[in-house]
Amino acid sequence: MELSGCLARRGHVASAALIVSFFLGILADDARAAPPDLDAIRAEVAAQHDASVKRLQEWIALPSIAAEDLNSREGAQYMAGLARDAGFQHVEIIETDGKPGVFATLDAEAEKTVGVYFMYDVKQFDPAEWSSPPLEAKLTERPGVGTVMMGRGAVNQKGPQAAMLSALRAIRDAGQPMPVNLVLVAEGEEEIGSPHIGQFVLHPKVRAALADSIGVFMPMALQGLDGEVTVSLGAKGVVELELVASGEKWGRGPAKDIHSSLKAMVDSPAWRLVKALDTLVSDDGNTITIDGYPVAPPLSEEHRAMIAAATSRRSEAEMKKLFGVPHWIDDLPWQQANERLVSQPTVNIQGLVGGYTGPGGKTVLPHRAAAKLDLRLVPGMSKDAAVAALKSHLAARGYGDIEVNVTGGYDPTSTDADAELIQAQLAVLRGHGLDPLLWPRGAGSYPGFVFTDPPLSLPAGHFGLGHGSGAHAPDEYFLIESSNPKVEGYDGAVMSYVEYLYELSR
Amino acid sequence: MELSGCLARRGHVASAALIVSFFLGILADDARAAPPDLDAIRAEVAAQHDASVKRLQEWIALPSIAAEDLNSREGAQYMAGLARDAGFQHVEIIETDGKPGVFATLDAEAEKTVGVYFMYDVKQFDPAEWSSPPLEAKLTERPGVGTVMMGRGAVNQKGPQAAMLSALRAIRDAGQPMPVNLVLVAEGEEEIGSPHIGQFVLHPKVRAALADSIGVFMPMALQGLDGEVTVSLGAKGVVELELVASGEKWGRGPAKDIHSSLKAMVDSPAWRLVKALDTLVSDDGNTITIDGYPVAPPLSEEHRAMIAAATSRRSEAEMKKLFGVPHWIDDLPWQQANERLVSQPTVNIQGLVGGYTGPGGKTVLPHRAAAKLDLRLVPGMSKDAAVAALKSHLAARGYGDIEVNVTGGYDPTSTDADAELIQAQLAVLRGHGLDPLLWPRGAGSYPGFVFTDPPLSLPAGHFGLGHGSGAHAPDEYFLIESSNPKVEGYDGAVMSYVEYLYELSR
Repeated sequence: MELSGCLARRGHVASAALIVSFFLGILADDARAAPPDLDAIRAEVAAQHDASVKRLQEWIALPSIAAEDLNSREGAQYMAGLARDAGFQHVEIIETDGKPGVFATLDAEAEKTVGVYFMYDVKQFDPAEWSSPPLEAKLTERPGVGTVMMGRGAVNQKGPQAAMLSALRAIRDAGQPMPVNLVLVAEGEEEIGSPHIGQFVLHPKVRAALADSIGVFMPMALQGLDGEVTVSLGAKGVVELELVASGEKWGRGPAKDIHSSLKAMVDSPAWRLVKALDTLVSDDGNTITIDGYPVAPPLSEEHRAMIAAATSRRSEAEMKKLFGVPHWIDDLPWQQANERLVSQPTVNIQGLVGGYTGPGGKTVLPHRAAAKLDLRLVPGMSKDAAVAALKSHLAARGYGDIEVNVTGGYDPTSTDADAELIQAQLAVLRGHGLDPLLWPRGAGSYPGFVFTDPPLSLPAGHFGLGHGSGAHAPDEYFLIESSNPKVEGYDGAVMSYVEYLYELSR
Repeated sequence: MELSGCLARRGHVASAALIVSFFLGILADDARAAPPDLDAIRAEVAAQHDASVKRLQEWIALPSIAAEDLNSREGAQYMAGLARDAGFQHVEIIETDGKPGVFATLDAEAEKTVGVYFMYDVKQFDPAEWSSPPLEAKLTERPGVGTVMMGRGAVNQKGPQAAMLSALRAIRDAGQPMPVNLVLVAEGEEEIGSPHIGQFVLHPKVRAALADSIGVFMPMALQGLDGEVTVSLGAKGVVELELVASGEKWGRGPAKDIHSSLKAMVDSPAWRLVKALDTLVSDDGNTITIDGYPVAPPLSEEHRAMIAAATSRRSEAEMKKLFGVPHWIDDLPWQQANERLVSQPTVNIQGLVGGYTGPGGKTVLPHRAAAKLDLRLVPGMSKDAAVAALKSHLAARGYGDIEVNVTGGYDPTSTDADAELIQAQLAVLRGHGLDPLLWPRGAGSYPGFVFTDPPLSLPAGHFGLGHGSGAHAPDEYFLIESSNPKVEGYDGAVMSYVEYLYELSR
């Protein structure tokens, strides 16, 4: 889950849910109803607790990491097995030009069909940075939280996904009717930007199965330590790319690093990169100045109202402390800063790397310098249009030799608040005494576009009670036994999926 | 030797001497004379050959690396021992705020006194990159060159320095008169920019001893594979520094790396660095646009003539191939490109580093970004004035929060062509049938300013026949037995110092 993940990077372990709960909004009506014999199911969930925990630990022990070409096929086969055990009658591995996807269907002879989006891959990790071995998924005590399972993928995304599968087992084993038919799509490349998700999800079989669904959701531990939950209506798109200036491509400057004294007679690709970058944004670095770049549409009144409601209930001081940010852009007030967050595309420098990057100095004139950028896209913008505009801008400014190496990304995604998929979430959350807010659009990105864009054009979102933190960071965890009455542990998370599926069936 | 060194970096093993021989100029008169019994000394050099080679190997086995705080005191003590063995009657270790210097005097009751500048430290190395263990100093065959000693410090600078000391031994042991008194200053911080050389060389005792000298030279293997030698009349000054933009210092943007999606509401220190850098040079990256920056004086006619003579004899194609450079700045012709090399100050980007610098991308908004710069200075400019101008420029442009961390550097250095120290070099070289050229100013840097600037105001330069390559790079070597009739091996190098000392005594 890219948004929560990155906030937890670089040893800065923020609560994924805290960030998500940062994006709240209010909704009015209520439509919750209890499923047939919820108590029987709850009892079954408790009876299966130990086995469920063990199953999650075994899953974490097998990390699939696409970036390292590690265990992708093994991970897909393992995922297929988990789906079969949970009751999916048809389970199939779909090949792509990248890592395989796992496609599974559960026919409950129900009226409605619901899509579920899983990822079986996890982020890279360095065991040396962990206080507990990341593949051992040990249960440890966390003050104020409870007993947590610490391991790579615990919250991003194996824990919530395992809880969702536990819900299916509990319904079945409690002899209760499966309320909806299910279509599961599990990809193995989420952590590298889902480069082949279209190939997988739009495979004729998969597309046909999803076409009849009322929407697609991804299991996620959405609770912050205050128990609050946000329902997000989509996410920005993203393009990750590298701009590379080099003597080779430029036809000026050196073809290898040479002595820096030669700068007096030799052109510098590093300076060329700086000059090209300078043309991309305004002097304050905040307004995109790429010629012909797509323009962001204004915020709708509905979305503006959601943001107003959220910011009135969220602590600006807490977020400034969390991010270590004393002022928002242009010293904007809290609400306007959030409107900017939701509505504005960005051109961000993720990293600069060129020449000598070690301690102290080294007197070289580098032959190559690169800037790693990410572009965030709002509805109305597409990855392809953004990249095309950037390339033609550079060419028009005389920087056509600078390479634009796109490494990943996808279009923005949006879902209407009145979609069944969303309304059912709100109903379940209210049933837990929560007062969920809606958030127009996550500032981070996930590949929901493959569901919300044509040809499928389905609602999509994330759902689930429970809590975890440290996605993409060391000491990632998922809460198993909660010591915090506001926050659900593993069994509570399982029940939230049970309730959601029954709510969706109404 | 910073100039030769850096050209050999990054696996690009250029011949230090080839680069130096790139800076040639013509001189007219001839003033060579043979010392008393040169043949007896030559015989002694041959008799001591094996012992001399072994002594050099033992020296290389003890690397002193200031940057790694490795063996500096041991290296100084070892250097002191080598000086004593070579006949220096007074040898003393001079403490500084950094690594100690070694000060030694040899009183020959001669009329003239000559200063000799040594460095006992060497550049860092990674044995994994070497084809032969860098501390074993093995003798290996090099096609077209001969038998070379491969090891860290072989050419930069232990080999030539060992040959100079062998010359003193041979004169003594052949029973010949020592032609000049000697003052040796050996520092242990040359490879980190000689931060305490002033404290060492201007120590009252050392300064007093050098004050009476006719000048100071550093032993160096100056021969390229064509045997040619350049006599350089100085070097540019240099400032090495890091420009750092950070949220902490700026008071805007994040205090730690945060999720890149937050760029929509949070300022970016990385963009701030790019915008600040953009103000330092012209759009082509070649003209300094720092407000109030010192202006370079025009080339003198004498220097212009030296450059014209050199470029008429040097191959532009060879240098373009060596550097991998298809065009010089502004497509300048060969001679004008060299005039620019000699006469122009530079602002070079050695390295850019900020945020995520690994493979692919990582969606962070970095809290910090840095540019490693080096500024080359020509006569009339000083390190302090350049740094002051840079700082006030940044402050005036509103970038006063950007840190200017100076890590090293020193002022330019110049010596007149008619100095005895230089004329004697030309005489010895001509005696070897060479046609040496003069070069106005090396584009690289060495701390000659401490000798040529007040209070000492002495001539200074480099001298020595012989050949080597790979300074600062893997597989650094110094030629021991030459298979190339144009190039001197170890014994030839030793004799060049013998001849030089006698020539200086005339």
